[in-house]
Amino acid sequence: MKNKLDALMQTNDLEAIIVVGPGQHNPAMVYMTGGGHLTNADLIKKRGESAVLFHYPMERDEAAKSGLKTKNLSDYNYTELLKRSDGDNLKAIVNRYQIMLTELGITSGNVALYGRSDIGLNFAVFSALQKEMPGLNFIGEVDNSVLMLARMTKDDPEVERIRKMGIITTQVVGLVADFITSKKEKNGLLVNRDGIPVRIGEVKNRINIWLSERGADNPEGTIFAIGHDAGVPHSSGNPTDPLKLGQTIVFDIFPCEAGGGYFYDFTRTWCLGYAPDAVLALYEDVLSTYTKVTQALQAGRSFKYYQQMTCELFSAQGHPTIKEDPQTQQGYVHSLGHGIGLNIHERPWSGISSDEKDCLIPGSVFTIEPGLYYPDRGMGVRLENSFWVCPDGKIDMLAEYPMDLVLPVKKI
Amino acid sequence: MKNKLDALMQTNDLEAIIVVGPGQHNPAMVYMTGGGHLTNADLIKKRGESAVLFHYPMERDEAAKSGLKTKNLSDYNYTELLKRSDGDNLKAIVNRYQIMLTELGITSGNVALYGRSDIGLNFAVFSALQKEMPGLNFIGEVDNSVLMLARMTKDDPEVERIRKMGIITTQVVGLVADFITSKKEKNGLLVNRDGIPVRIGEVKNRINIWLSERGADNPEGTIFAIGHDAGVPHSSGNPTDPLKLGQTIVFDIFPCEAGGGYFYDFTRTWCLGYAPDAVLALYEDVLSTYTKVTQALQAGRSFKYYQQMTCELFSAQGHPTIKEDPQTQQGYVHSLGHGIGLNIHERPWSGISSDEKDCLIPGSVFTIEPGLYYPDRGMGVRLENSFWVCPDGKIDMLAEYPMDLVLPVKKI
Repeated sequence: MKNKLDALMQTNDLEAIIVVGPGQHNPAMVYMTGGGHLTNADLIKKRGESAVLFHYPMERDEAAKSGLKTKNLSDYNYTELLKRSDGDNLKAIVNRYQIMLTELGITSGNVALYGRSDIGLNFAVFSALQKEMPGLNFIGEVDNSVLMLARMTKDDPEVERIRKMGIITTQVVGLVADFITSKKEKNGLLVNRDGIPVRIGEVKNRINIWLSERGADNPEGTIFAIGHDAGVPHSSGNPTDPLKLGQTIVFDIFPCEAGGGYFYDFTRTWCLGYAPDAVLALYEDVLSTYTKVTQALQAGRSFKYYQQMTCELFSAQGHPTIKEDPQTQQGYVHSLGHGIGLNIHERPWSGISSDEKDCLIPGSVFTIEPGLYYPDRGMGVRLENSFWVCPDGKIDMLAEYPMDLVLPVKKI
Repeated sequence: MKNKLDALMQTNDLEAIIVVGPGQHNPAMVYMTGGGHLTNADLIKKRGESAVLFHYPMERDEAAKSGLKTKNLSDYNYTELLKRSDGDNLKAIVNRYQIMLTELGITSGNVALYGRSDIGLNFAVFSALQKEMPGLNFIGEVDNSVLMLARMTKDDPEVERIRKMGIITTQVVGLVADFITSKKEKNGLLVNRDGIPVRIGEVKNRINIWLSERGADNPEGTIFAIGHDAGVPHSSGNPTDPLKLGQTIVFDIFPCEAGGGYFYDFTRTWCLGYAPDAVLALYEDVLSTYTKVTQALQAGRSFKYYQQMTCELFSAQGHPTIKEDPQTQQGYVHSLGHGIGLNIHERPWSGISSDEKDCLIPGSVFTIEPGLYYPDRGMGVRLENSFWVCPDGKIDMLAEYPMDLVLPVKKI
């Protein structure tokens, strides 16, 4: 949680943090500022002091909305800085950072870098700044990013925002189910009233409209993948594919608040009209594992404990898993879940080699999404819900929705 | 254009380029791959050779859609790499890059870095890789990025995609105008049938739905700012503000193709019901300058030539401009326009200190958007259209829409 940031900076020996990039669709910046229409900005926080948001003059009112201490970049007179560096933009930018950091009293110690932005420009800038300010040590954290550690547990207002996205998400899933079951079957395909097949692209367009009507963004698109594609976990589905009856459809939907806020993550597997025996058997294996794992969830355990359990359950059912063969592309091929927040995938991680810090404690918000994949047999099944560990340690599902496999479809 | 990439790499002495990050909403990656549902990937291109797209195993089919040569990251056995580096993820990632680059024969020369991704992680990775591969020189280009130079001119399919976004954009602007003029006035405010004021948030929600219905994303939101906010160029507008009659509304809309493709950029200034004399005078100054500048546009000239012209025209009308006072927040406070493409703002730049390379030549796609701002007087006016320099040097506006200031509104 954000109120632990100073303590975490202390533990990890950080003197300051710098977040760069736009105000939207940039998780670190959204976390620190609350979002807003900033084309590009810098947020600098010294340990134990309030963060300062540096903004361009045309965006002064947008920056003020953050409620943070703000500073107008025009105060640094870039034209003059550029003159002094003989027109070299890199030198002028580096010089401006040097002045900004010095003004904030940040002249020695470790400074961690964050933000989703242009990596080339920032590599050049911070490499050059490192040379100009040898007392500072600019670092990129790989394993235990302080900001990700803070974000790994959510406070109540964050949980409420994620829960609201869960309600929107399941509403839209319901509309997709209504849309599909309002259609008929002809020659094994789902068709419109005129007999023309419904295609995946049409379903995805409707999903975007229904999300948009509810104030949600869908920056990463939706997985709505059928048959072979359902057997490859991240295949997003071919827009021109028709919806064949009796084939698995993996429907994985992960929208966020408008402007790049909190995400939700949710998956169902559907089979239109009927489920062949092999599909039904696969679905029952996933559902039984999902049920056992979610019933076993306890606050305080490491997330990978449940990945281990999932592998064992699927193994006992006779499926290959990544535990025995990390390269397998059949059976259980991914990890059990992940944290959700301003990133669709964030800590805690559930992979077998994840850190001991990745555990389920009060404030954790995470997905449980076991799945089985057989691309060569043209099928895949995944079931996913998102959960929250409440302050009292109870595990709470954030949005309810039926787990049914078969969506009934009538003949034309 | 992309077919000039090898020549540009030669000129700028680049042995290779590396693009990192997701497959969507990541301009450099979208340019090289065409987009697609890749959570995270690496694209590496050696000069004179085809690009190779390195992807995660679950995303193999998504990667294949790019039509590029692909390589599965699972071939590098990360578990084994991690073991060899005693569980240090940074070392394992660096080691994997080292193997990948060596396999592609990239062992000496300059390597430029691109991609919108986590700057901390990438700063750490490429700083460490630099030490492991001293024959290579990893660089971030600040002023003359080879990829931005290639992207600065568009080929015909790119222009058609931008033009299509222009049609969608102006359709939605028309729907907003229809929506507003279907409402009535009461006590100086635009109201719904029940007499309750229409608020900016309601207009913006409808814009998102109408864009979504047409297959467009709106990742950066819309500027729909009234009164004082219209006087601050990048204020996006307060959702709870009602629509007052007789006040300037700056409506700047810049959606992109779904998944983070090509943008369009378009602005109108509206005044509901009537325009007070001071607003009309301001609008006429902007329109007259807009008209003179667009009529003077000629292929081959530098973009800043027209910025110069715009400053002179506004000065002659008696407005302060950034030419005389770079810090001014009244009058003409920004540059004339910018290139548009996979970034909403990209080269060519029109600022007074922009490069000689930033000129309007066949393939350039750019905005012209003069504006005048008086926040203390509660008003601002900006007019913007987007243009293309055709192969024969003709200048073509990409989407037509009336320039009218006043939207008529009836009393309730």
